[in-house]
Amino acid sequence: MHLLKSFVPKNCSQTMSISNLAKRAFSTSYYANMDLSSKQTFYRKDLTIELTKNPIPMPEFDAEKLRFGAHGTDHMLSVDFDSKQGGWGKPYIHPFRNLEMHPFNSAIHYAMQCFEGAKAFKGTDGKIRMFRVKNNMYRLKNSCKSLALPDFDGEELYKCIEEYVKIDEKWIPPIRGFSLYIRPTVIAWEDKLGVRPADKAKLFVVFSPVGPYYPSGFKPIKLFTETKRIRAAPGGTGNMKVGGNYAPTIPISQNAEQKGFQQVLWLWQDSILEVGTSNIFFYWVNEQGEKELVTPYLNEGTILPGVMRDSILSLTRQWNEFKVTERRITIDEVVKAAKEGRLIEAFGAGTAVIVCPIEEFNYQGVTYKVPINPKKQAGDLTYKISETIQNIQYGDTPHEWAPIVN
Amino acid sequence: MHLLKSFVPKNCSQTMSISNLAKRAFSTSYYANMDLSSKQTFYRKDLTIELTKNPIPMPEFDAEKLRFGAHGTDHMLSVDFDSKQGGWGKPYIHPFRNLEMHPFNSAIHYAMQCFEGAKAFKGTDGKIRMFRVKNNMYRLKNSCKSLALPDFDGEELYKCIEEYVKIDEKWIPPIRGFSLYIRPTVIAWEDKLGVRPADKAKLFVVFSPVGPYYPSGFKPIKLFTETKRIRAAPGGTGNMKVGGNYAPTIPISQNAEQKGFQQVLWLWQDSILEVGTSNIFFYWVNEQGEKELVTPYLNEGTILPGVMRDSILSLTRQWNEFKVTERRITIDEVVKAAKEGRLIEAFGAGTAVIVCPIEEFNYQGVTYKVPINPKKQAGDLTYKISETIQNIQYGDTPHEWAPIVN
Repeated sequence: MHLLKSFVPKNCSQTMSISNLAKRAFSTSYYANMDLSSKQTFYRKDLTIELTKNPIPMPEFDAEKLRFGAHGTDHMLSVDFDSKQGGWGKPYIHPFRNLEMHPFNSAIHYAMQCFEGAKAFKGTDGKIRMFRVKNNMYRLKNSCKSLALPDFDGEELYKCIEEYVKIDEKWIPPIRGFSLYIRPTVIAWEDKLGVRPADKAKLFVVFSPVGPYYPSGFKPIKLFTETKRIRAAPGGTGNMKVGGNYAPTIPISQNAEQKGFQQVLWLWQDSILEVGTSNIFFYWVNEQGEKELVTPYLNEGTILPGVMRDSILSLTRQWNEFKVTERRITIDEVVKAAKEGRLIEAFGAGTAVIVCPIEEFNYQGVTYKVPINPKKQAGDLTYKISETIQNIQYGDTPHEWAPIVN
Repeated sequence: MHLLKSFVPKNCSQTMSISNLAKRAFSTSYYANMDLSSKQTFYRKDLTIELTKNPIPMPEFDAEKLRFGAHGTDHMLSVDFDSKQGGWGKPYIHPFRNLEMHPFNSAIHYAMQCFEGAKAFKGTDGKIRMFRVKNNMYRLKNSCKSLALPDFDGEELYKCIEEYVKIDEKWIPPIRGFSLYIRPTVIAWEDKLGVRPADKAKLFVVFSPVGPYYPSGFKPIKLFTETKRIRAAPGGTGNMKVGGNYAPTIPISQNAEQKGFQQVLWLWQDSILEVGTSNIFFYWVNEQGEKELVTPYLNEGTILPGVMRDSILSLTRQWNEFKVTERRITIDEVVKAAKEGRLIEAFGAGTAVIVCPIEEFNYQGVTYKVPINPKKQAGDLTYKISETIQNIQYGDTPHEWAPIVN
């Protein structure tokens, strides 16, 4: 744990009282005081650009047709690392193309791979904005460390991504609700079999134009609470965005889908962790009779420190309208709140979806309803958060979280 | 758990009394009554072979120089799956070459990947033998199911591997202690981003000639007992050979190495799980005063059901010289046995190493010695197991575990 201990911010479990929100709001963030530096790095100033001679036909920016992750763009960004050749090479933007991978590469044998998900937006004013992408740089650095993949300077990668976004600007759909999904990835690039630190690695970034998660307004989901299989456990990699966290969840999600549920509610013992690949929030009247927004704390290393999670915590603390708390949440507490009519709303939160309304959850064969405002197909708070975030992303509300890319 | 429940054999936790070993010995094996069949499969009869026109220069079969996993062979075996094209295509043996991978492939984003490790040997009689490779076929099928990768008929893959071994026969070093490492791998072969079952997949098998794990006799190892980070937890994927189990262990192993330990002893809470990437065995005088060989049980899904583990259990039960037990083992029990002088031997067990003598382990800052026969640099039982298995592998002791490849 000493390797990762420093990633967990102190005091993030502490319940915030409304009175001291202002001074505490940011001290609890995983991203507070984040350090993006590294002596071992590549540099934006060394960036080479090779523009494509064969532009890819652009898909129709149609909310119903634009499937998530189905389309690459004209270019991609690559940087190679070789410890025997002085470390990182020069960043390179080049035409989108396949990777030529050695069959022994430990990225495909031992899952030496981590990634990020972020978004760029074409604002109402026609300008490009990226949403909190430096946070993703920080998380990617931490994921790399957790797999002994090489570190890099996050500011330099950020600057390279800015250039790449400008080059593929036409791939950002100029429509509210649409965006350009940004997928930075770091993989081992070995040509020898063996469970050992990678001498060679490849960092690459690809883009994919994406439509609104809900083409025709919110569509609340039903959750299946998984009580036997797990996504993460204390001491594992649940707080890192590493590939190995994802594939094993697929048959379990499939199983839930076959039973009529859209997502899995993940537990660790009786603690609630996440929903599907998103963080989870409950808005309730707590046992003390206070209105409270709660989400599982990061303390046990079992929760992905989502950028959207962090944004929602920060926004709602600033709103100062109800108590906002990060702590351990048990499934029994949520069941009790549902039974007693204290559950006001529940929602998932992530980059792809912003917020995802939850209308019911099934636990041990019993279904519990969560209120939904039928007009909005979401709770009022869920809806307000979605609108607030989108206003920032599309530049309607100028905000430091969505800097303009010049 | 319902998805994977059937993989855990019943009664495997039960302590065997010497009296009923004969009838119980195989009922406890993970591989007892294994079913290799699948309606969805490719067939050996459809195998296409394209021999290389550019043979790769063969490395020197020198025990000191032949690094594990450093050399591919002239050919590889590939089979592609596409659910929209009728499932599995035809198996194909072709020149060893790089994979042309789409940058969105979920094998490198979500670790949709699993593998096996097995060996072929050039016997003392000049004949080729493969060691229990059908067990690897079974485990690979189970790993695939655990990631929603497509199932296949294990007998068919086995027969294709036999053909491949014959084609690359010259790559099997004809020297006792050397072998041809066999690495079957199944990965997603998607060109779309998304955490969902793969429509396309690729099964490939590669070989690598390997030397003896210990070029100059055994070299016992020192273990660091990791108490904060984990390799596996109940409900997770510890019993599957999936890529995601491996990469996160690398920084933890690195940390142990920096402290002067060769391997990590993995715990789950106070239960002993594995050592490095091997299973672990203790040979001791138990609290009842009986000589006993113990290894962690498979019941909690946290232990890889190693083929070597299974072989050692089976052999020693047949020997009928001491009690042989699979059960939960706590670190405290092992510490107590070491303190009381009851620990006779300890060793790791796996395909690469067969057995790996352990000479000490460190737990919470205290070092505990494990006896070693200085002449053999291993315990007597450890040594005997190594010799017995090698005699089978090289055909000196004819055995059903090492069928001749004709």
